Amino acid sequence: MGEANELGEEAARLAEQARELQDAAAALLSKTWNEEQALRLRALALESELKRLRSSVDSAAKKNPAALDQKIAGKIDEELCRARCLVSDGDVSSLLPSKDHGRFLKMFLGPVNVRATRKEVQLKVKEEYNSYRDRTAFLFLLFPCTLLFLRSYIWDECLPALPVQLYQAWLLFLYTSLALRENVLRVNGSDIRPWWIFHHYCAMLMALVSLTWEIKGQPDCANKQKGVQLFLVWAMMQGVAMLLQNRYQRQRLYTRIALGKAKRMDVVWGETAGVEGQLLLLCPILFILQGFEAYVGILLLRTALVGAIREWQVIVCGSLLVLMAVGNFANTVQTLMAKSRFKAKMRRTKSKHDFDANASPPNSSPTY
Amino acid sequence: MGEANELGEEAARLAEQARELQDAAAALLSKTWNEEQALRLRALALESELKRLRSSVDSAAKKNPAALDQKIAGKIDEELCRARCLVSDGDVSSLLPSKDHGRFLKMFLGPVNVRATRKEVQLKVKEEYNSYRDRTAFLFLLFPCTLLFLRSYIWDECLPALPVQLYQAWLLFLYTSLALRENVLRVNGSDIRPWWIFHHYCAMLMALVSLTWEIKGQPDCANKQKGVQLFLVWAMMQGVAMLLQNRYQRQRLYTRIALGKAKRMDVVWGETAGVEGQLLLLCPILFILQGFEAYVGILLLRTALVGAIREWQVIVCGSLLVLMAVGNFANTVQTLMAKSRFKAKMRRTKSKHDFDANASPPNSSPTY
Repeated sequence: MGEANELGEEAARLAEQARELQDAAAALLSKTWNEEQALRLRALALESELKRLRSSVDSAAKKNPAALDQKIAGKIDEELCRARCLVSDGDVSSLLPSKDHGRFLKMFLGPVNVRATRKEVQLKVKEEYNSYRDRTAFLFLLFPCTLLFLRSYIWDECLPALPVQLYQAWLLFLYTSLALRENVLRVNGSDIRPWWIFHHYCAMLMALVSLTWEIKGQPDCANKQKGVQLFLVWAMMQGVAMLLQNRYQRQRLYTRIALGKAKRMDVVWGETAGVEGQLLLLCPILFILQGFEAYVGILLLRTALVGAIREWQVIVCGSLLVLMAVGNFANTVQTLMAKSRFKAKMRRTKSKHDFDANASPPNSSPTY
Repeated sequence: MGEANELGEEAARLAEQARELQDAAAALLSKTWNEEQALRLRALALESELKRLRSSVDSAAKKNPAALDQKIAGKIDEELCRARCLVSDGDVSSLLPSKDHGRFLKMFLGPVNVRATRKEVQLKVKEEYNSYRDRTAFLFLLFPCTLLFLRSYIWDECLPALPVQLYQAWLLFLYTSLALRENVLRVNGSDIRPWWIFHHYCAMLMALVSLTWEIKGQPDCANKQKGVQLFLVWAMMQGVAMLLQNRYQRQRLYTRIALGKAKRMDVVWGETAGVEGQLLLLCPILFILQGFEAYVGILLLRTALVGAIREWQVIVCGSLLVLMAVGNFANTVQTLMAKSRFKAKMRRTKSKHDFDANASPPNSSPTY
């Protein structure tokens, strides 16, 4: 009976402790929220003051260019840029209302918040995204290689349906997860170009459509499977390009972070960045890939229109490939142009006063 | 020149403000982190003490059942249960290390944290999940109805491929998003039964496989499309059942929340809950559905084995349907049994001392 009473007392004690803990947690949460709210209001006020000053400076420069000394104008630019960077990329940023999550994330996940408060966590998400791309680039190369190899040496020039469909299902999963992860990165402050995300929506749609596309066999297999085969060759080239890009863009990102020139949430995705010398190697490869992508697309469209295979899937896949090729090309060129504009500006700034290592490139510049 | 200086001074002032704000935010984040860490350690210590006491009580009861007075044992049970509920469902819970996110979420999203700190946000996620199910249940009914209607009155008893494939693609999206959302709910503290999530993985796989399954047309269309047609009829019945379930389980959840009997993160998903009287209506419908699901599965398997359509998709879809039917049946029965056990226990507790309206059912009980 004594033991029972002892147990009962201990239970009561633990229940009391739980109540105390609950009260402490509730108090901490509400206190933290209030303090955060105060900082949030200050940050929002500062943001709007920065915007106001930016526009007064611009209008002053427009009204009377001579009145604004180049040196003072440069200094103002620098101060404003630094203040904006602190607000948008420092610890304050985690308190500001997060970017809209976007329809895509909401559709798949509902209204859950995927923004990390702590910078370390944001960077971990980023790191994991990069290593995910490394891993998948390898598979991206391996799968079509294997399929094409087996086709030549084992399958007697005629792909069976199942392995190709497994590959297409993997592509659908891959593009879905990339699109989701890129949306998560965007919410966490990375200014990835919208086109690259949209490009993955197109790729998702193409993978989905290609799944419904019957893989025809003998007789006359080689002719019927021409589209699939071309697609696999293109995918193989894409895999090589992805591996090259990942490697050099990562190097470049680390160099830029070390120089304090890039926000660490910047995404290395994209088709043009790379250590300076590598750009000379990457650019031709990228343009050839884009050309080949368009060629495969047009070939598919021609097959459908001339009438050998009158399936709607052929038309949709062909159009999507052409759309993606054109979009990729336009974005690559834009990025290269923005890159050289930014570089020219940096040179000008540098010649006037020592370039501050803490200044970041403006948000509108390419971020790969 | 005076204006330029003024602008310069203001820029310097704003830059200074930004620095101050950054320092304040960094200080707040680290202070909050430390305070949270202290509470976290207390909560973990309390949790392990609760576990220890639970096992001493159990072993004492086992060693000498007579020594532990029924009344004291009931009181201890109640205190322990209340303490555990406060820790696992109160404001403290948001400080505890979150449940493992699971492979599925990591695969699609990477290592991002989807756990909401504030209870209101968790409940919003839950609310949105319920209303998402309401909306989709309606579509779940509408799509197969429309397809079957058009088949009879416009398409001359032969479904064209495209609309069916669009429906299958929608199913794939639906099951993926449901599986993702349920994983998010689980991380946020809902104790949804693992089977219902696994069940959605199976459904995803089936939708994916069915996309690769060629929809055959004339001649002898009615015979070739028997599987698809049966599946549509089953989907229609499923839609009706989902609508009924959603409505009554929600009512029941609100009743239970009002009575303080359910944690508010509990999921109404599942196949058996419902306001008492409705259970008599729902149960037969659910069992008939499960039987019909198994019947469609076996029919598909027979078609494949007898040899009319020798596609691997038929075998996989058939097996998945049988697996889901058996699993659903087993889980429905288990839930019903756990429900009646819980009810019996509640009656016993109530007869001894007034049942505390704040006590929650133990975690092992059904949560629909």
